[in-house]
Amino acid sequence: MTSVDNTGTQRFVTCGELGAQDAGQRVAVRGWVNATRDHGGLIFIDVRDRYGVTQAVFDPRTSAREAYESAAHLRSEDVIMAAGTVRPRPAGTENANLSTGAIEVAADALTVLNKSKTPPFPLHGDADVDEALRMKYRYIDLRRAPMQRNIELRHRALKAARDYLDAQGFLEIETPMLIKSTPEGARDFLVPSRLHAGEFYALPQSPQLFKQLLMVAGFHRYFQMARCFRDEDSRADRQPEFSQIDIEMTFPTQDDVIAVIEGTLAHMFERALGTHVKTPFVRLRYDEALADYGSDKPDLRFAMKLSDFSPAFAGTEFKIFANELAKGHAIVGLVDASGAGRSRREFDTLVQTAAAEWGAKGLAWIAFASDGVKSSLPKAALTEAALTQVRAIGGAGEGDAVFFAADERAAAQAIAGKLRLHLGSERGLRDPARFEFCWVLDFPLFERDPESGALGPMHHPFTAPAPGQDLLTGDPLALRAQHYDVVLNGSELGSGSIRIHDPNVQRKVFELLGYSDEQVQQRFGFLLEAFAYGAPPHGGMALGIDRIIAIMVGAESIREVIAFPKNQRFQDLMIDAPSAVEPQSLRELRLRVDQPAQPSQPNQSRSQS
Amino acid sequence: MTSVDNTGTQRFVTCGELGAQDAGQRVAVRGWVNATRDHGGLIFIDVRDRYGVTQAVFDPRTSAREAYESAAHLRSEDVIMAAGTVRPRPAGTENANLSTGAIEVAADALTVLNKSKTPPFPLHGDADVDEALRMKYRYIDLRRAPMQRNIELRHRALKAARDYLDAQGFLEIETPMLIKSTPEGARDFLVPSRLHAGEFYALPQSPQLFKQLLMVAGFHRYFQMARCFRDEDSRADRQPEFSQIDIEMTFPTQDDVIAVIEGTLAHMFERALGTHVKTPFVRLRYDEALADYGSDKPDLRFAMKLSDFSPAFAGTEFKIFANELAKGHAIVGLVDASGAGRSRREFDTLVQTAAAEWGAKGLAWIAFASDGVKSSLPKAALTEAALTQVRAIGGAGEGDAVFFAADERAAAQAIAGKLRLHLGSERGLRDPARFEFCWVLDFPLFERDPESGALGPMHHPFTAPAPGQDLLTGDPLALRAQHYDVVLNGSELGSGSIRIHDPNVQRKVFELLGYSDEQVQQRFGFLLEAFAYGAPPHGGMALGIDRIIAIMVGAESIREVIAFPKNQRFQDLMIDAPSAVEPQSLRELRLRVDQPAQPSQPNQSRSQS
Repeated sequence: MTSVDNTGTQRFVTCGELGAQDAGQRVAVRGWVNATRDHGGLIFIDVRDRYGVTQAVFDPRTSAREAYESAAHLRSEDVIMAAGTVRPRPAGTENANLSTGAIEVAADALTVLNKSKTPPFPLHGDADVDEALRMKYRYIDLRRAPMQRNIELRHRALKAARDYLDAQGFLEIETPMLIKSTPEGARDFLVPSRLHAGEFYALPQSPQLFKQLLMVAGFHRYFQMARCFRDEDSRADRQPEFSQIDIEMTFPTQDDVIAVIEGTLAHMFERALGTHVKTPFVRLRYDEALADYGSDKPDLRFAMKLSDFSPAFAGTEFKIFANELAKGHAIVGLVDASGAGRSRREFDTLVQTAAAEWGAKGLAWIAFASDGVKSSLPKAALTEAALTQVRAIGGAGEGDAVFFAADERAAAQAIAGKLRLHLGSERGLRDPARFEFCWVLDFPLFERDPESGALGPMHHPFTAPAPGQDLLTGDPLALRAQHYDVVLNGSELGSGSIRIHDPNVQRKVFELLGYSDEQVQQRFGFLLEAFAYGAPPHGGMALGIDRIIAIMVGAESIREVIAFPKNQRFQDLMIDAPSAVEPQSLRELRLRVDQPAQPSQPNQSRSQS
Repeated sequence: MTSVDNTGTQRFVTCGELGAQDAGQRVAVRGWVNATRDHGGLIFIDVRDRYGVTQAVFDPRTSAREAYESAAHLRSEDVIMAAGTVRPRPAGTENANLSTGAIEVAADALTVLNKSKTPPFPLHGDADVDEALRMKYRYIDLRRAPMQRNIELRHRALKAARDYLDAQGFLEIETPMLIKSTPEGARDFLVPSRLHAGEFYALPQSPQLFKQLLMVAGFHRYFQMARCFRDEDSRADRQPEFSQIDIEMTFPTQDDVIAVIEGTLAHMFERALGTHVKTPFVRLRYDEALADYGSDKPDLRFAMKLSDFSPAFAGTEFKIFANELAKGHAIVGLVDASGAGRSRREFDTLVQTAAAEWGAKGLAWIAFASDGVKSSLPKAALTEAALTQVRAIGGAGEGDAVFFAADERAAAQAIAGKLRLHLGSERGLRDPARFEFCWVLDFPLFERDPESGALGPMHHPFTAPAPGQDLLTGDPLALRAQHYDVVLNGSELGSGSIRIHDPNVQRKVFELLGYSDEQVQQRFGFLLEAFAYGAPPHGGMALGIDRIIAIMVGAESIREVIAFPKNQRFQDLMIDAPSAVEPQSLRELRLRVDQPAQPSQPNQSRSQS
């Protein structure tokens, strides 16, 4: 350990390393005052650092007088150095909850290295501290044991990923952060140039194009823990800057990329958490994930698969179902095992939640109770044949309930999927200490914007179509992509694909997406140019670091695993960013800030600028 | 290895791994066509990847006809897969310069994975390619063997640093990149906020304050490979974004930090370069470095120390020297061993270089030639006593020359220091494959701006003064700092210091620097607040990654060790950044770009904006 000064013959130790075997040794501990106690003239000081807590005892009969008096005035979070002799704690006073609980330091010297004001919130226990206060005093918040653990675990997990990828022949290569703005998808953060005033760099939303160029450059296997930036409108648990494990490789099949990612994740969980992750992961087709779980990021910690109950109601006289089926829509539902015992009010609450939170037009249910069938559905729907088929399709028996959403198939699946998660949580089936990974494969290449109707890439325009498909003819929406998502416990950890490396295929995809030649040239001209100089087949993946670590530690928000996060308004409350800047700085950039519309005149139309 | 398709029973191998022991095996290699040769109907294709080059041979008698004809049409940089059987090369045709030079692949199958246009410059040899062309086609430039080596070595060196620091208990912690602008020193890059239009983030010039806050937060030992940004005016070999190994630790002495840095650097050189670095490094005081080497970043690959020749000319009748000495200035010089044989013209050239490039008012010399003393100095300066003393002070003998710069001591030292480097280069004493590290210690805490006369921090305002000095009284310029620079071969690799952790000392330093209370509060209020809540003593260092790697590989410019650097005008010529952005993007930021003054009217005064 390190020393501030070296006035004695003591050995500097951390607050986590002393045990019974050290009795009799002369040591010095340094750290924060975690707690003070005064018992019959003896002063007990718990000294804390990153490694643990060690008890120092000041005795008026043996400690130096100044040390004793100084100890009597210590307050929580003061920074001290205490020196003395290690001794076993008196029998019966050992603390088994503490790694150093068998010993104490009989302290005879004390140096106060810095004083502390009373912290703005308690550092121990689960007090529900206002998050804005935690953010403003993040340097204090980070001293709390869960935050220390989260940040250390993040380091261990990323170190494990780096070690694994290095061993697999991947080179970590830094790509630039001052790049070019592309008016795609989520918004870029812009960075005005001073040397070229009036022009702008953009911060990268990902190193996508650079990692593809690294493959063109022949680096074969690349990775980077890459900082990325997205100026999206605030959404729950989004950060304007975030980190991803960014990977790209040359000549891979989809299975090759999948194997590397599985190895990386397994190594991270093993080394950082001591958790063995079974590989290979389960693989689901995109269609299958939607049909069985109502989500392309299914939570596989519990079964409770969805079923298509449409056949049970074919020919029903219940108009709502009949109309939906006539439109080609579906009745998707799931069985709530032993759910028939719910009260009418409990059923009503679920129906209300579905409407209010999941966007359901309605949620129907049938309860196969021991005293008969109950249901939100009218008699017309509950024919004997229908009930028999519902039981058969869902595998439902006496005591079970069945829920139904009738809508366009995708919408019905989504609602049933949300209900599934709700029921899983309600029944305690979503244990944060269990980790169930899966792959979702065979995504569509394109999707249609529901509002504009325009064709867009389901992920990004560099994704290669699955082999054997014809881009030139037929329905673009029927094309499948060589794209794969990895999912853990219902959260998407990352996305990847085999990329297009043929400039003609890339041009064709841009064309299908409706880009003019000029737009293609301006935005992606350098990529097409690069593809003309011997671009190898390549593909890769990006894994969201913040999300992975949050799931590892069971955190509700990624803010719990980022040392200095922004709040949901993208502000840093500790340093007060963003903020106004000096007019001189803007003049050098040749920029002017337009005034906003006056908020005091709410009826005036808002300025367009 | 990975596969694109898997049509045969061959094993996929890299182009660098086959040897005599693989003879008889069926393999496939994938990579770029490095060269093609046609010898009597046999077609030889050198296939290249990151790992090496393997020769594939197509024989019209044994290769499939399509494969042979396809091979005949291959051109440099086409991407191919060639499959066949490994066999020893015919006796006498082995290539000892190639790791795979003992074998070749008798190829019977060929897949062209992508074609290449003719590259815009040759990939082999030392052709002097225009750097702008290299930058525009960086993905091709990076295929060249020296660039492949540089980027791979960079990965190995950083991996070694990470492994070492991890083993020493350092946690890698990511700090934010969207922070607050501080109007200090080099200029910040600003990032306009859209959610808070009219306000700005700034990109970090370093994680300095965040790493100090991590110490306040109790993380004990932190490091990060940190991207930093500085919007300085273009200077030779500067980049607007650069990377540093950023380190901070709690409770350290200066020696503790020094030991960690020496260990880190030694580990990097050992693992990435196979070079053993001797520790501990030489330590020089700042004053000593200036006196002996005329630089605070001395090149210790050669001795040739400076001397103060002032005593030799005390009482001289040569007016120029007499005047300088009367003003308290110094005559600093050095001995050019065996330099007396230079021609008058050679001496004149050196004198001209000193004036034109090093800012010398003049450079005098004395040559102790075998046929007598020659000199640029007038007789009045060359008294027997003066010559005797010059010989004694410099240790000069017959055949040596001595050079002199007379000026303010610091200026004279700087000129003599530059001459020393020049002579070292001239004599081949600056071997790029030798690595001589040193520490420079005991820097002044403050310096005075030569123009404004204002007191400024020599490094930054968070540097702790050396212990035992009184900040309140006496000359601030006499104060020493707990600051240390590590230097390699005449380049500064990094700077560090023990930081101030006492809020009162920090306030006092801000006051000495002339900050108003309001400025302090606005810029550093959160830091002083943090120091009031139990800030531990702490200190650290930052090492410039680009510079370290450049010296490791003997590169002239850091652009040679950065995958995608900007040019000296801070432009990325490949992607065309910075560039204009859509008016809509600016409107969302509530920004307007002012028009510049018309360049077509050069007599008009330039716009101030």
